[in-house]
Amino acid sequence: MSSSKASEGDTVRLKAGGKEHTGVLMPHHEFSHPDVIVIKLKSGYNIGIKVDERSELIVTMRSQQRVSKPRGQETGGNLPSLSFLGTGGTIASYVDYRTGAVHPALKAEELVATVPELSEICHMRSKVVFSIFSENMNVQNWRSLAEAVAEELNEGAEGVIIPHGTDTLGFTSAAMSFMLGDIPRPVVLVGAQRSSDRPSSDSYGNLLSAARFCVQADAAEVFVLMHGETSDTCANVHRGTKVRKLHTSRRDAFQSVNAIPVARMDLQGGMEILSPYRKKTTGKVQADTRMESNVGLLHFYPGMNPDIVRKMSQDLKGLVMAGTGLGHVSKEMVSVLKEMVAQGKPVVMTSQCLNGRVNLNVYDTGRDLLSAGVIPGEDMLPETALVKLMWVLGRTDRPDEVERLMLQDMRGEISERREL
Amino acid sequence: MSSSKASEGDTVRLKAGGKEHTGVLMPHHEFSHPDVIVIKLKSGYNIGIKVDERSELIVTMRSQQRVSKPRGQETGGNLPSLSFLGTGGTIASYVDYRTGAVHPALKAEELVATVPELSEICHMRSKVVFSIFSENMNVQNWRSLAEAVAEELNEGAEGVIIPHGTDTLGFTSAAMSFMLGDIPRPVVLVGAQRSSDRPSSDSYGNLLSAARFCVQADAAEVFVLMHGETSDTCANVHRGTKVRKLHTSRRDAFQSVNAIPVARMDLQGGMEILSPYRKKTTGKVQADTRMESNVGLLHFYPGMNPDIVRKMSQDLKGLVMAGTGLGHVSKEMVSVLKEMVAQGKPVVMTSQCLNGRVNLNVYDTGRDLLSAGVIPGEDMLPETALVKLMWVLGRTDRPDEVERLMLQDMRGEISERREL
Repeated sequence: MSSSKASEGDTVRLKAGGKEHTGVLMPHHEFSHPDVIVIKLKSGYNIGIKVDERSELIVTMRSQQRVSKPRGQETGGNLPSLSFLGTGGTIASYVDYRTGAVHPALKAEELVATVPELSEICHMRSKVVFSIFSENMNVQNWRSLAEAVAEELNEGAEGVIIPHGTDTLGFTSAAMSFMLGDIPRPVVLVGAQRSSDRPSSDSYGNLLSAARFCVQADAAEVFVLMHGETSDTCANVHRGTKVRKLHTSRRDAFQSVNAIPVARMDLQGGMEILSPYRKKTTGKVQADTRMESNVGLLHFYPGMNPDIVRKMSQDLKGLVMAGTGLGHVSKEMVSVLKEMVAQGKPVVMTSQCLNGRVNLNVYDTGRDLLSAGVIPGEDMLPETALVKLMWVLGRTDRPDEVERLMLQDMRGEISERREL
Repeated sequence: MSSSKASEGDTVRLKAGGKEHTGVLMPHHEFSHPDVIVIKLKSGYNIGIKVDERSELIVTMRSQQRVSKPRGQETGGNLPSLSFLGTGGTIASYVDYRTGAVHPALKAEELVATVPELSEICHMRSKVVFSIFSENMNVQNWRSLAEAVAEELNEGAEGVIIPHGTDTLGFTSAAMSFMLGDIPRPVVLVGAQRSSDRPSSDSYGNLLSAARFCVQADAAEVFVLMHGETSDTCANVHRGTKVRKLHTSRRDAFQSVNAIPVARMDLQGGMEILSPYRKKTTGKVQADTRMESNVGLLHFYPGMNPDIVRKMSQDLKGLVMAGTGLGHVSKEMVSVLKEMVAQGKPVVMTSQCLNGRVNLNVYDTGRDLLSAGVIPGEDMLPETALVKLMWVLGRTDRPDEVERLMLQDMRGEISERREL
């Protein structure tokens, strides 16, 4: 093939095998087939095209090279400035086509470069905070990330977009919600269920929609934006404390639980607001990253051994239970939880049903739990209750204060009770 | 009010306050208001009617009093014989209207008597195996129940219906599936989200539909039958290994996960088959109730302390993990699981996403887990994998045999993999 000096991110016209394709040139990796060029079509889908010496690649528009410039050096007048903080995950990965395995590879800059439309929406600034698969995320990572977000917002970013692995994305969005507090502008965590070099990748649409949402919506909370349907029509914006990964592989894996999504972004650029949110303000952010990491989360099951939990509780400062139904555990487990509370270790009850609200006033077991001092987790997700309890215990260990804070809706994590 | 000698379960006409109501007389409890009579209307809804000395209650049809007769004494010719095995739970409870609390009260006989249509469908035989709230269910209860079911089937019951608390109903249905093996006729667990004396109780419709399903469908597996929609149109029949309580309070809380329901029963008596099932056969049942109860179920979360899990694992014979996404845990936790496997303690990986299949071949973390000897749980629910591992460890502790059995679909717990 004729040497064409095309760079990743350039819009190109490729003539090969008697056909012509127009799209964005995708990155070439260590494991890519040497004779295949991958182009992202306008539809968002990637195709791999086999090329030979007769093929021809023509650059029709150079990539704008706007990424990674220090703030203030951007050109283009009135476009708002968005920061992309890389953390790793599938959205920043590519497939090794020899083994089918997925490797972390793309830097935030490269990732952003694969979505040329971004340069028409915003000035971009990107930074890699760390690059890990999200199952390895821990409290220290949450702290670094919250600090990095605060810095970007305080330097004037109109919004911060965090590409993140999907495995623990819901935990991180909850952690950011509590650590960042009343932020003046939006923070949007975005993931991909399929890596950016796969034909059906949701990376492109999710990144683009996240940028559009930051610019178009007058919203200032921590959100999660992910593919909304099995087809390619829309992405949903979820509140960071109300969202959960509910499918191992589908692109529409993320769903709001006990809440409706905040907005829906169609992939053509339209935005539909579905529920109220906090509006943009001015002011600086001070991330409050104090967190007690020795908090446990246990899902109850029949025959759960109370002695094991008793032993385990010695190493914990607090515990979130995901009980059955309205928030129940066995009689023997009620005793263990009572002992924990008596030792000044708060216990919060949520439900493994996920949907619906715990209610400890209906059955004897529930009332026994209340008498034992167990805090009802209302309609909080078990994962959100865990992160919140970590955060609350980072600032107080006074039982009454822990209970007050756990029962108070701080970041939309508790929906208003509807009287039936 | 005039003394009417009406009994619970009788069809009555009540004249009170200038109005007339026809329906089934519901049980009167210790805590019921003395001046209120509760009648179940034909729609299945209960209404409470305030009565005074001018009110009039006329019995239009006596309850058939067919319940609790020893097998063989039933009359009525060709009606099939169904056994009702009481275990407790909301379906066998009533509300204390002074406190709003729910108490276990109704015996299986009383429960059955509140559904007079049953006597047109089947001969009924009822027995209370135990009466507990299902959060207190344990392995020993599963054993007693499986033995009781086997006895009823071996004595010729056309089907066994098990009213059960909803909290752990999905665990019990999985336990019955594995313990009972290839049963010749159906076993249907049925619960209620609202107690039988509440207007919107689902107890009536669920019991009736369970009986109809046993008689109408040529099906011989362990099923769960529960209300299917928020409205009162239908009930769904789920495979016992594929069902989970997914709402704390809604009547349609139970859903098939990674499967479609087996059948839908409309409340008028119609049946729609939705997916294949095992047909009725002849032959006796031998319940195999061996079970290793020292098996744990842990849901992974960021910052999970590997030392606590390491310590805890000393008291366990096996562990089911509900990992993130495709079945992942942190690097540190991979080490702990590897140690467990090396000690001959099987570890099975499922996903806390619930929907979808684990796949340990996509990411490095997954491949590390496979190298560590962790068994992929395919698309099994974490709860079903727990019960299955308990059952498998009850008959072998040979690692290769445990792995073989865990990967083999025994009771519909693993769906066939669809190649994309």
